[in-house]
Amino acid sequence: MPAPAADARPIGVFDSGIGGLTVVAALMRRLPGESILYLGDTARLPYGSKSAQTVARYARKNIDFLLGRGVKAVIIACNTASALAGAELDGPVPVWGVVDPGAEAALQSSPGRRIGVIATESTIRSGAYVRAIHRLDPDAEVIARACPLFVPLVEEGWGDDPVTELVARRYLEPLLASGIDSLVLGCTHYPVLVPVLRRITGEEVVIVDSAETMARKAARELEAAGLLADGETAEHHFCVTDASDGFRRLALELLPGLGDRMRLEWVEV
Amino acid sequence: MPAPAADARPIGVFDSGIGGLTVVAALMRRLPGESILYLGDTARLPYGSKSAQTVARYARKNIDFLLGRGVKAVIIACNTASALAGAELDGPVPVWGVVDPGAEAALQSSPGRRIGVIATESTIRSGAYVRAIHRLDPDAEVIARACPLFVPLVEEGWGDDPVTELVARRYLEPLLASGIDSLVLGCTHYPVLVPVLRRITGEEVVIVDSAETMARKAARELEAAGLLADGETAEHHFCVTDASDGFRRLALELLPGLGDRMRLEWVEV
Repeated sequence: MPAPAADARPIGVFDSGIGGLTVVAALMRRLPGESILYLGDTARLPYGSKSAQTVARYARKNIDFLLGRGVKAVIIACNTASALAGAELDGPVPVWGVVDPGAEAALQSSPGRRIGVIATESTIRSGAYVRAIHRLDPDAEVIARACPLFVPLVEEGWGDDPVTELVARRYLEPLLASGIDSLVLGCTHYPVLVPVLRRITGEEVVIVDSAETMARKAARELEAAGLLADGETAEHHFCVTDASDGFRRLALELLPGLGDRMRLEWVEV
Repeated sequence: MPAPAADARPIGVFDSGIGGLTVVAALMRRLPGESILYLGDTARLPYGSKSAQTVARYARKNIDFLLGRGVKAVIIACNTASALAGAELDGPVPVWGVVDPGAEAALQSSPGRRIGVIATESTIRSGAYVRAIHRLDPDAEVIARACPLFVPLVEEGWGDDPVTELVARRYLEPLLASGIDSLVLGCTHYPVLVPVLRRITGEEVVIVDSAETMARKAARELEAAGLLADGETAEHHFCVTDASDGFRRLALELLPGLGDRMRLEWVEV
Protein backbone atom coordinates (compact mmCIF):
# COMPACT_ATOMS: atom_id res chain seq x y z
CA MET A 1 0.00 0.00 0.00
CA PRO A 2 1.51 3.39 -0.93
CA ALA A 3 2.01 5.96 1.81
CA PRO A 4 -0.69 8.67 1.82
CA ALA A 5 0.26 11.53 -0.51
CA ALA A 6 1.84 14.41 1.42
CA ASP A 7 0.94 17.91 0.34
CA ALA A 8 4.14 19.92 0.10
CA ARG A 9 2.44 23.17 -0.97
CA PRO A 10 3.00 26.02 1.50
CA ILE A 11 0.46 27.41 3.92
CA GLY A 12 -0.25 31.02 2.95
CA VAL A 13 -0.37 33.52 5.80
CA PHE A 14 -1.01 37.23 5.49
CA ASP A 15 -1.13 40.22 7.79
CA SER A 16 -0.96 43.99 7.43
CA GLY A 17 2.66 43.84 8.55
CA ILE A 18 4.62 42.04 11.23
CA GLY A 19 1.88 41.06 13.69
CA GLY A 20 1.06 37.89 11.77
CA LEU A 21 4.57 36.60 12.48
CA THR A 22 3.30 35.60 15.92
CA VAL A 23 0.96 33.23 14.05
CA VAL A 24 3.90 31.98 11.96
CA ALA A 25 5.89 31.34 15.14
CA ALA A 26 2.99 29.34 16.58
CA LEU A 27 2.58 27.41 13.30
CA MET A 28 6.29 26.55 13.21
CA ARG A 29 6.16 25.23 16.78
CA ARG A 30 3.07 23.14 16.07
CA LEU A 31 3.74 22.09 12.45
CA PRO A 32 7.53 22.12 12.00
CA GLY A 33 7.26 20.19 8.73
CA GLU A 34 5.09 22.74 6.93
CA SER A 35 6.34 25.32 4.44
CA ILE A 36 5.00 28.82 4.97
CA LEU A 37 4.54 31.63 2.48
CA TYR A 38 4.01 34.87 4.40
CA LEU A 39 2.77 38.16 3.00
CA GLY A 40 3.12 41.35 5.09
CA ASP A 41 1.22 44.24 3.51
CA THR A 42 3.67 46.78 4.91
CA ALA A 43 2.93 49.35 2.18
CA ARG A 44 -0.64 49.78 3.43
CA LEU A 45 -0.37 49.02 7.15
CA PRO A 46 -1.96 49.52 9.58
CA TYR A 47 -5.39 48.08 8.83
CA GLY A 48 -6.68 48.73 12.34
CA SER A 49 -7.82 52.30 11.75
CA LYS A 50 -9.29 51.80 8.27
CA SER A 51 -12.79 51.14 6.94
CA ALA A 52 -14.29 47.71 6.29
CA GLN A 53 -14.48 48.34 2.54
CA THR A 54 -10.84 49.32 2.27
CA VAL A 55 -9.58 46.47 4.45
CA ALA A 56 -11.70 43.98 2.48
CA ARG A 57 -10.19 45.25 -0.77
CA TYR A 58 -6.65 44.85 0.57
CA ALA A 59 -7.43 41.39 2.00
CA ARG A 60 -8.83 40.21 -1.35
CA LYS A 61 -5.63 41.32 -3.11
CA ASN A 62 -3.47 39.55 -0.55
CA ILE A 63 -5.41 36.31 -0.85
CA ASP A 64 -5.23 36.41 -4.65
CA PHE A 65 -1.48 36.95 -4.43
CA LEU A 66 -1.06 33.91 -2.16
CA LEU A 67 -3.33 31.78 -4.37
CA GLY A 68 -1.24 32.81 -7.38
CA ARG A 69 1.77 31.38 -5.60
CA GLY A 70 0.09 28.02 -5.10
CA VAL A 71 -0.72 27.82 -1.39
CA LYS A 72 -2.86 24.97 -0.03
CA ALA A 73 -4.68 27.11 2.55
CA VAL A 74 -4.80 30.77 3.59
CA ILE A 75 -4.61 32.05 7.15
CA ILE A 76 -5.78 35.61 7.68
CA ALA A 77 -3.31 36.28 10.48
CA CYS A 78 -4.71 39.75 11.10
CA ASN A 79 -7.63 40.20 13.42
CA THR A 80 -8.75 43.38 11.67
CA ALA A 81 -8.93 41.70 8.26
CA SER A 82 -10.59 38.61 9.77
CA ALA A 83 -13.10 40.76 11.61
CA LEU A 84 -13.93 43.13 8.77
CA ALA A 85 -13.71 40.88 5.75
CA GLY A 86 -13.44 37.30 6.95
CA ALA A 87 -16.95 36.22 6.06
CA GLU A 88 -16.70 37.51 2.49
CA LEU A 89 -13.34 35.98 1.73
CA ASP A 90 -12.99 32.59 0.18
CA GLY A 91 -11.13 30.80 -2.55
CA PRO A 92 -10.42 27.43 -4.12
CA VAL A 93 -8.55 26.47 -0.93
CA PRO A 94 -9.63 26.86 2.72
CA VAL A 95 -9.42 30.43 4.09
CA TRP A 96 -9.31 30.76 7.89
CA GLY A 97 -9.49 33.90 10.00
CA VAL A 98 -8.20 34.32 13.55
CA VAL A 99 -11.44 35.55 15.11
CA ASP A 100 -13.42 32.28 15.33
CA PRO A 101 -10.72 30.17 17.02
CA GLY A 102 -10.04 33.09 19.37
CA ALA A 103 -13.70 33.30 20.34
CA GLU A 104 -13.86 29.56 20.94
CA ALA A 105 -10.74 29.55 23.12
CA ALA A 106 -12.03 32.54 25.09
CA LEU A 107 -15.19 30.68 26.05
CA GLN A 108 -13.20 27.59 27.04
CA SER A 109 -11.10 29.78 29.37
CA SER A 110 -13.93 31.71 30.96
CA PRO A 111 -15.90 29.76 33.56
CA GLY A 112 -17.61 33.01 34.63
CA ARG A 113 -18.58 33.82 31.02
CA ARG A 114 -17.20 37.37 31.37
CA ILE A 115 -14.76 37.87 28.54
CA GLY A 116 -12.61 40.89 27.80
CA VAL A 117 -11.51 41.55 24.22
CA ILE A 118 -8.78 44.03 23.31
CA ALA A 119 -8.01 44.83 19.68
CA THR A 120 -7.58 47.61 17.13
CA GLU A 121 -10.24 50.24 16.64
CA SER A 122 -11.59 48.65 13.44
CA THR A 123 -11.77 45.15 14.93
CA ILE A 124 -13.68 46.39 17.96
CA ARG A 125 -15.98 48.58 15.87
CA SER A 126 -16.80 45.63 13.63
CA GLY A 127 -18.26 43.74 16.60
CA ALA A 128 -16.83 40.51 15.12
CA TYR A 129 -15.61 39.05 18.43
CA VAL A 130 -18.86 39.82 20.21
CA ARG A 131 -20.81 38.12 17.40
CA ALA A 132 -18.45 35.12 17.26
CA ILE A 133 -18.65 34.58 21.02
CA HIS A 134 -22.43 35.03 21.10
CA ARG A 135 -22.89 32.51 18.28
CA LEU A 136 -21.33 29.96 20.66
CA ASP A 137 -22.88 31.23 23.89
CA PRO A 138 -25.53 33.95 23.69
CA ASP A 139 -25.34 34.53 27.44
CA ALA A 140 -21.64 35.31 27.65
CA GLU A 141 -20.82 38.86 28.61
CA VAL A 142 -18.23 40.49 26.37
CA ILE A 143 -16.44 43.70 27.30
CA ALA A 144 -14.54 45.01 24.30
CA ARG A 145 -12.00 47.82 24.21
CA ALA A 146 -10.02 49.34 21.34
CA CYS A 147 -6.34 49.89 22.19
CA PRO A 148 -5.00 51.94 19.25
CA LEU A 149 -1.63 52.68 20.86
CA PHE A 150 -0.57 49.07 21.43
CA VAL A 151 0.56 48.40 17.85
CA PRO A 152 2.72 51.55 17.61
CA LEU A 153 4.19 50.81 21.06
CA VAL A 154 5.15 47.28 19.99
CA GLU A 155 6.61 48.63 16.76
CA GLU A 156 8.61 51.22 18.72
CA GLY A 157 10.18 48.29 20.59
CA TRP A 158 8.57 49.40 23.88
CA GLY A 159 6.62 46.18 24.36
CA ASP A 160 7.77 45.89 27.98
CA ASP A 161 8.15 49.47 29.14
CA PRO A 162 6.74 51.77 31.85
CA VAL A 163 5.02 53.91 29.18
CA THR A 164 3.29 50.83 27.79
CA GLU A 165 2.27 49.78 31.28
CA LEU A 166 0.73 53.22 31.93
CA VAL A 167 -1.19 53.04 28.64
CA ALA A 168 -2.26 49.44 29.29
CA ARG A 169 -3.52 50.28 32.79
CA ARG A 170 -5.76 52.94 31.32
CA TYR A 171 -7.05 50.68 28.55
CA LEU A 172 -7.68 47.67 30.83
CA GLU A 173 -9.20 49.49 33.79
CA PRO A 174 -12.85 49.25 32.62
CA LEU A 175 -12.40 45.57 31.69
CA LEU A 176 -10.97 44.63 35.07
CA ALA A 177 -13.65 46.67 36.82
CA SER A 178 -16.22 44.53 34.99
CA GLY A 179 -14.72 41.37 36.52
CA ILE A 180 -13.55 39.59 33.36
CA ASP A 181 -11.96 36.18 33.87
CA SER A 182 -10.45 35.82 30.39
CA LEU A 183 -8.86 38.36 28.09
CA VAL A 184 -8.63 37.79 24.33
CA LEU A 185 -5.63 39.36 22.61
CA GLY A 186 -7.59 40.28 19.49
CA CYS A 187 -4.58 41.53 17.55
CA THR A 188 -1.60 39.46 16.50
CA HIS A 189 0.81 42.16 17.73
CA TYR A 190 -0.35 41.79 21.31
CA PRO A 191 1.41 38.58 22.41
CA VAL A 192 4.54 40.75 22.77
CA LEU A 193 2.69 42.67 25.50
CA VAL A 194 1.92 39.65 27.68
CA PRO A 195 4.45 40.45 30.47
CA VAL A 196 2.98 43.96 30.87
CA LEU A 197 -0.62 42.75 30.61
CA ARG A 198 0.06 39.98 33.13
CA ARG A 199 1.33 42.53 35.71
CA ILE A 200 -1.95 44.44 35.33
CA THR A 201 -4.45 41.57 35.18
CA GLY A 202 -2.82 39.40 37.85
CA GLU A 203 -2.81 35.61 37.60
CA GLU A 204 -6.57 35.02 37.79
CA VAL A 205 -7.38 36.31 34.32
CA VAL A 206 -6.60 33.83 31.51
CA ILE A 207 -4.91 35.52 28.56
CA VAL A 208 -6.04 34.02 25.25
CA ASP A 209 -3.54 34.43 22.44
CA SER A 210 -5.31 34.44 19.06
CA ALA A 211 -2.06 33.51 17.29
CA GLU A 212 -1.75 30.30 19.30
CA THR A 213 -5.42 29.33 18.91
CA MET A 214 -5.19 29.95 15.15
CA ALA A 215 -2.19 27.61 14.81
CA ARG A 216 -4.07 24.93 16.75
CA LYS A 217 -7.04 25.22 14.40
CA ALA A 218 -4.84 25.11 11.28
CA ALA A 219 -3.13 21.93 12.48
CA ARG A 220 -6.48 20.30 13.20
CA GLU A 221 -8.07 21.27 9.89
CA LEU A 222 -5.08 20.41 7.71
CA GLU A 223 -4.88 17.00 9.29
CA ALA A 224 -8.61 16.40 8.86
CA ALA A 225 -8.41 17.39 5.19
CA GLY A 226 -5.34 15.25 4.51
CA LEU A 227 -3.35 18.34 3.58
CA LEU A 228 -0.33 17.93 5.87
CA ALA A 229 3.16 17.89 4.37
CA ASP A 230 5.67 15.13 5.02
CA GLY A 231 8.13 17.60 6.52
CA GLU A 232 10.96 16.72 4.18
CA THR A 233 11.02 19.98 2.29
CA ALA A 234 9.83 22.70 4.67
CA GLU A 235 10.80 26.11 3.30
CA HIS A 236 9.79 29.52 4.52
CA HIS A 237 9.38 32.51 2.31
CA PHE A 238 8.47 36.04 3.37
CA CYS A 239 7.04 38.72 1.09
CA VAL A 240 6.43 42.37 1.96
CA THR A 241 4.73 45.09 -0.07
CA ASP A 242 7.12 47.75 1.23
CA ALA A 243 10.80 47.27 1.92
CA SER A 244 10.83 48.06 5.62
CA ASP A 245 14.12 47.91 7.52
CA GLY A 246 12.29 46.83 10.61
CA PHE A 247 10.67 43.75 9.09
CA ARG A 248 13.76 41.53 8.92
CA ARG A 249 14.88 42.54 12.40
CA LEU A 250 11.49 41.90 13.97
CA ALA A 251 11.02 38.70 11.99
CA LEU A 252 14.28 37.31 13.31
CA GLU A 253 13.32 38.37 16.85
CA LEU A 254 9.94 36.65 16.64
CA LEU A 255 11.29 33.63 14.72
CA PRO A 256 14.74 33.10 16.22
CA GLY A 257 15.03 29.62 14.75
CA LEU A 258 14.87 31.01 11.24
CA GLY A 259 18.32 32.54 10.98
CA ASP A 260 19.85 32.02 7.54
CA ARG A 261 16.69 30.44 6.17
CA MET A 262 14.97 33.86 6.10
CA ARG A 263 14.11 34.55 2.46
CA LEU A 264 12.63 38.04 2.05
CA GLU A 265 11.11 39.37 -1.16
CA TRP A 266 9.59 42.74 -2.01
CA VAL A 267 6.39 42.36 -4.06
CA GLU A 268 3.69 44.66 -5.46
CA VAL A 269 0.22 43.40 -4.63
CA MET B 1 -7.41 100.03 -16.71
CA PRO B 2 -8.95 96.65 -15.84
CA ALA B 3 -8.38 95.22 -12.39
CA PRO B 4 -5.70 92.50 -12.31
CA ALA B 5 -7.22 89.10 -13.06
CA ALA B 6 -7.88 87.14 -9.87
CA ASP B 7 -7.20 83.42 -9.93
CA ALA B 8 -10.15 81.65 -8.34
CA ARG B 9 -8.73 78.12 -8.77
CA PRO B 10 -8.23 76.31 -5.46
CA ILE B 11 -4.92 75.67 -3.76
CA GLY B 12 -4.35 71.89 -3.64
CA VAL B 13 -3.12 70.50 -0.34
CA PHE B 14 -2.39 66.87 0.43
CA ASP B 15 -1.28 64.83 3.40
CA SER B 16 -1.33 61.19 4.42
CA GLY B 17 -4.32 61.93 6.62
CA ILE B 18 -5.36 64.64 9.02
CA GLY B 19 -2.01 66.24 9.89
CA GLY B 20 -2.10 68.51 6.84
CA LEU B 21 -5.22 70.16 8.26
CA THR B 22 -2.90 72.20 10.50
CA VAL B 23 -1.51 73.65 7.24
CA VAL B 24 -5.07 74.28 6.01
CA ALA B 25 -5.86 76.08 9.28
CA ALA B 26 -2.77 78.27 8.85
CA LEU B 27 -3.66 78.95 5.19
CA MET B 28 -7.21 79.95 6.13
CA ARG B 29 -5.94 82.39 8.74
CA ARG B 30 -3.42 83.93 6.34
CA LEU B 31 -5.37 83.74 3.06
CA PRO B 32 -9.06 83.77 3.98
CA GLY B 33 -10.07 84.48 0.37
CA GLU B 34 -8.49 81.35 -1.10
CA SER B 35 -10.37 78.16 -1.96
CA ILE B 36 -8.71 74.97 -0.78
CA LEU B 37 -8.97 71.45 -2.17
CA TYR B 38 -7.60 69.03 0.42
CA LEU B 39 -6.73 65.39 -0.13
CA GLY B 40 -6.12 63.13 2.90
CA ASP B 41 -4.73 59.76 1.82
CA THR B 42 -6.37 58.00 4.75
CA ALA B 43 -6.45 54.62 2.97
CA ARG B 44 -2.66 54.42 2.99
CA LEU B 45 -1.67 56.39 6.09
CA PRO B 46 0.70 56.66 7.82
CA TYR B 47 3.55 57.54 5.48
CA GLY B 48 6.03 58.04 8.32
CA SER B 49 7.12 54.41 8.62
CA LYS B 50 7.25 53.61 4.89
CA SER B 51 10.03 53.57 2.29
CA ALA B 52 10.99 56.48 0.04
CA GLN B 53 9.89 54.61 -3.10
CA THR B 54 6.46 53.81 -1.73
CA VAL B 55 5.86 57.31 -0.35
CA ALA B 56 7.00 58.87 -3.65
CA ARG B 57 4.54 56.66 -5.54
CA TYR B 58 1.67 57.71 -3.27
CA ALA B 59 2.67 61.40 -3.47
CA ARG B 60 2.74 61.29 -7.27
CA LYS B 61 -0.79 59.85 -7.34
CA ASN B 62 -2.02 62.50 -4.93
CA ILE B 63 -0.53 65.33 -6.98
CA ASP B 64 -2.02 63.97 -10.20
CA PHE B 65 -5.41 63.78 -8.52
CA LEU B 66 -5.21 67.41 -7.41
CA LEU B 67 -3.99 68.53 -10.85
CA GLY B 68 -6.91 66.68 -12.42
CA ARG B 69 -9.22 68.80 -10.27
CA GLY B 70 -7.68 72.03 -11.57
CA VAL B 71 -5.64 73.42 -8.67
CA LYS B 72 -3.32 76.42 -9.19
CA ALA B 73 -0.60 75.15 -6.84
CA VAL B 74 0.08 72.06 -4.75
CA ILE B 75 1.23 72.08 -1.13
CA ILE B 76 2.74 68.83 0.14
CA ALA B 77 1.43 69.30 3.67
CA CYS B 78 3.19 66.17 4.90
CA ASN B 79 6.77 66.34 6.07
CA THR B 80 7.40 62.70 5.21
CA ALA B 81 6.27 63.12 1.60
CA SER B 82 8.16 66.42 1.30
CA ALA B 83 11.29 64.88 2.76
CA LEU B 84 11.21 61.65 0.79
CA ALA B 85 9.82 62.76 -2.52
CA GLY B 86 9.74 66.56 -2.56
CA ALA B 87 12.65 67.03 -4.95
CA GLU B 88 11.27 64.64 -7.55
CA LEU B 89 7.75 66.02 -7.57
CA ASP B 90 6.69 68.71 -9.96
CA GLY B 91 3.89 69.57 -12.32
CA PRO B 92 2.47 72.25 -14.57
CA VAL B 93 1.77 74.36 -11.44
CA PRO B 94 4.07 75.14 -8.50
CA VAL B 95 4.57 72.28 -6.02
CA TRP B 96 5.80 73.25 -2.56
CA GLY B 97 6.91 71.02 0.30
CA VAL B 98 6.95 71.89 4.00
CA VAL B 99 10.61 71.05 4.64
CA ASP B 100 12.33 74.07 3.05
CA PRO B 101 10.27 76.78 4.74
CA GLY B 102 10.64 74.88 8.04
CA ALA B 103 14.41 74.79 7.68
CA GLU B 104 14.52 78.49 6.88
CA ALA B 105 12.37 79.43 9.87
CA ALA B 106 14.46 77.20 12.15
CA LEU B 107 17.64 79.08 11.27
CA GLN B 108 15.91 82.42 11.78
CA SER B 109 14.90 81.29 15.29
CA SER B 110 18.24 79.84 16.34
CA PRO B 111 20.86 82.43 17.27
CA GLY B 112 23.03 79.64 18.71
CA ARG B 113 22.74 77.58 15.49
CA ARG B 114 21.78 74.48 17.47
CA ILE B 115 18.54 73.19 16.02
CA GLY B 116 16.46 70.24 17.14
CA VAL B 117 14.24 68.48 14.62
CA ILE B 118 11.51 66.01 15.60
CA ALA B 119 9.58 64.09 12.96
CA THR B 120 8.46 60.64 11.82
CA GLU B 121 10.95 57.84 11.35
CA SER B 122 11.01 58.17 7.56
CA THR B 123 11.47 61.95 7.61
CA ILE B 124 14.39 61.69 10.02
CA ARG B 125 15.96 58.77 8.14
CA SER B 126 15.77 60.75 4.89
CA GLY B 127 18.04 63.46 6.33
CA ALA B 128 15.98 66.05 4.46
CA TYR B 129 15.88 68.62 7.27
CA VAL B 130 19.60 68.31 7.96
CA ARG B 131 20.33 68.85 4.25
CA ALA B 132 17.90 71.76 3.93
CA ILE B 133 19.35 73.52 6.98
CA HIS B 134 22.95 72.87 5.89
CA ARG B 135 22.23 74.26 2.42
CA LEU B 136 21.43 77.57 4.16
CA ASP B 137 24.11 77.35 6.87
CA PRO B 138 26.68 74.56 6.71
CA ASP B 139 27.85 75.31 10.25
CA ALA B 140 24.51 74.89 11.98
CA GLU B 141 24.30 71.90 14.30
CA VAL B 142 21.18 69.78 13.79
CA ILE B 143 20.07 67.18 16.32
CA ALA B 144 17.31 65.07 14.79
CA ARG B 145 15.07 62.54 16.54
CA ALA B 146 12.34 60.27 15.24
CA CYS B 147 9.22 60.28 17.44
CA PRO B 148 7.07 57.45 16.03
CA LEU B 149 4.52 57.51 18.85
CA PHE B 150 3.51 61.16 18.52
CA VAL B 151 1.16 60.66 15.55
CA PRO B 152 -0.75 57.74 17.16
CA LEU B 153 -0.95 59.69 20.44
CA VAL B 154 -2.45 62.70 18.64
CA GLU B 155 -4.87 60.45 16.76
CA GLU B 156 -5.90 58.79 20.05
CA GLY B 157 -6.88 62.27 21.25
CA TRP B 158 -4.18 62.24 23.95
CA GLY B 159 -2.38 65.31 22.61
CA ASP B 160 -2.20 66.84 26.08
CA ASP B 161 -1.94 63.91 28.45
CA PRO B 162 0.47 62.55 31.11
CA VAL B 163 1.28 59.55 28.86
CA THR B 164 2.23 61.87 26.02
CA GLU B 165 4.33 63.97 28.38
CA LEU B 166 6.21 60.86 29.54
CA VAL B 167 6.85 59.81 25.94
CA ALA B 168 7.85 63.34 24.92
CA ARG B 169 10.32 63.64 27.83
CA ARG B 170 12.06 60.51 26.65
CA TYR B 171 12.15 61.63 23.02
CA LEU B 172 13.34 65.19 23.79
CA GLU B 173 15.92 64.38 26.46
CA PRO B 174 18.90 63.98 24.07
CA LEU B 175 17.93 67.16 22.18
CA LEU B 176 17.70 69.27 25.32
CA ALA B 177 20.96 67.77 26.61
CA SER B 178 22.57 69.02 23.39
CA GLY B 179 21.52 72.59 24.20
CA ILE B 180 19.20 73.27 21.24
CA ASP B 181 17.67 76.73 21.09
CA SER B 182 15.03 76.00 18.46
CA LEU B 183 12.90 72.94 17.85
CA VAL B 184 11.33 72.22 14.45
CA LEU B 185 8.03 70.35 14.52
CA GLY B 186 8.83 68.32 11.42
CA CYS B 187 5.42 66.69 11.18
CA THR B 188 2.13 68.46 10.61
CA HIS B 189 0.49 66.48 13.43
CA TYR B 190 2.80 67.96 16.04
CA PRO B 191 1.32 71.45 16.53
CA VAL B 192 -1.34 69.74 18.66
CA LEU B 193 1.46 68.74 21.06
CA VAL B 194 2.75 72.27 21.69
CA PRO B 195 1.40 72.60 25.27
CA VAL B 196 3.15 69.35 26.30
CA LEU B 197 6.36 70.17 24.41
CA ARG B 198 6.42 73.66 25.92
CA ARG B 199 6.29 72.21 29.46
CA ILE B 200 9.34 70.09 28.63
CA THR B 201 11.46 72.58 26.67
CA GLY B 202 10.73 75.62 28.84
CA GLU B 203 10.38 79.09 27.35
CA GLU B 204 13.94 79.49 26.00
CA VAL B 205 13.56 77.06 23.11
CA VAL B 206 11.70 78.49 20.11
CA ILE B 207 9.19 76.01 18.68
CA VAL B 208 9.00 76.23 14.88
CA ASP B 209 5.70 75.06 13.44
CA SER B 210 6.18 73.82 9.87
CA ALA B 211 2.46 74.28 9.13
CA GLU B 212 2.68 77.99 9.91
CA THR B 213 5.91 78.54 7.97
CA MET B 214 4.41 76.71 4.98
CA ALA B 215 1.35 78.99 4.93
CA ARG B 216 3.61 82.04 5.06
CA LYS B 217 5.60 80.79 2.06
CA ALA B 218 2.45 79.97 0.06
CA ALA B 219 1.07 83.47 0.64
CA ARG B 220 4.35 85.05 -0.46
CA GLU B 221 4.75 82.91 -3.58
CA LEU B 222 1.14 83.16 -4.73
CA GLU B 223 1.28 86.92 -4.44
CA ALA B 224 4.60 87.11 -6.32
CA ALA B 225 3.20 84.95 -9.11
CA GLY B 226 -0.05 86.91 -9.38
CA LEU B 227 -2.05 83.84 -8.45
CA LEU B 228 -4.10 85.17 -5.53
CA ALA B 229 -7.89 84.92 -5.64
CA ASP B 230 -10.16 87.88 -5.13
CA GLY B 231 -11.78 86.27 -2.12
CA GLU B 232 -15.31 86.47 -3.49
CA THR B 233 -15.84 82.77 -4.01
CA ALA B 234 -13.72 80.92 -1.43
CA GLU B 235 -14.89 77.32 -1.16
CA HIS B 236 -13.31 74.47 0.72
CA HIS B 237 -13.50 70.88 -0.34
CA PHE B 238 -12.06 67.85 1.46
CA CYS B 239 -11.34 64.49 -0.13
CA VAL B 240 -10.25 61.31 1.65
CA THR B 241 -9.20 57.97 0.19
CA ASP B 242 -10.80 56.07 3.05
CA ALA B 243 -14.03 56.99 4.79
CA SER B 244 -12.75 57.48 8.30
CA ASP B 245 -15.16 58.44 11.04
CA GLY B 246 -12.45 60.41 12.75
CA PHE B 247 -11.66 62.69 9.84
CA ARG B 248 -14.74 64.90 10.01
CA ARG B 249 -14.52 65.20 13.79
CA LEU B 250 -10.83 66.11 13.77
CA ALA B 251 -11.29 68.42 10.79
CA LEU B 252 -13.97 70.37 12.62
CA GLU B 253 -11.78 70.51 15.73
CA LEU B 254 -8.80 71.85 13.80
CA LEU B 255 -10.91 74.11 11.57
CA PRO B 256 -13.64 75.31 13.91
CA GLY B 257 -14.65 78.12 11.53
CA LEU B 258 -15.64 75.63 8.88
CA GLY B 259 -18.86 74.32 10.37
CA ASP B 260 -21.53 73.76 7.72
CA ARG B 261 -19.14 74.56 4.89
CA MET B 262 -17.33 71.22 5.39
CA ARG B 263 -17.74 69.31 2.12
CA LEU B 264 -16.29 65.80 2.42
CA GLU B 265 -15.89 63.38 -0.48
CA TRP B 266 -14.55 59.83 -0.62
CA VAL B 267 -12.29 59.29 -3.64
CA GLU B 268 -10.11 56.49 -5.03
CA VAL B 269 -6.66 57.74 -5.91
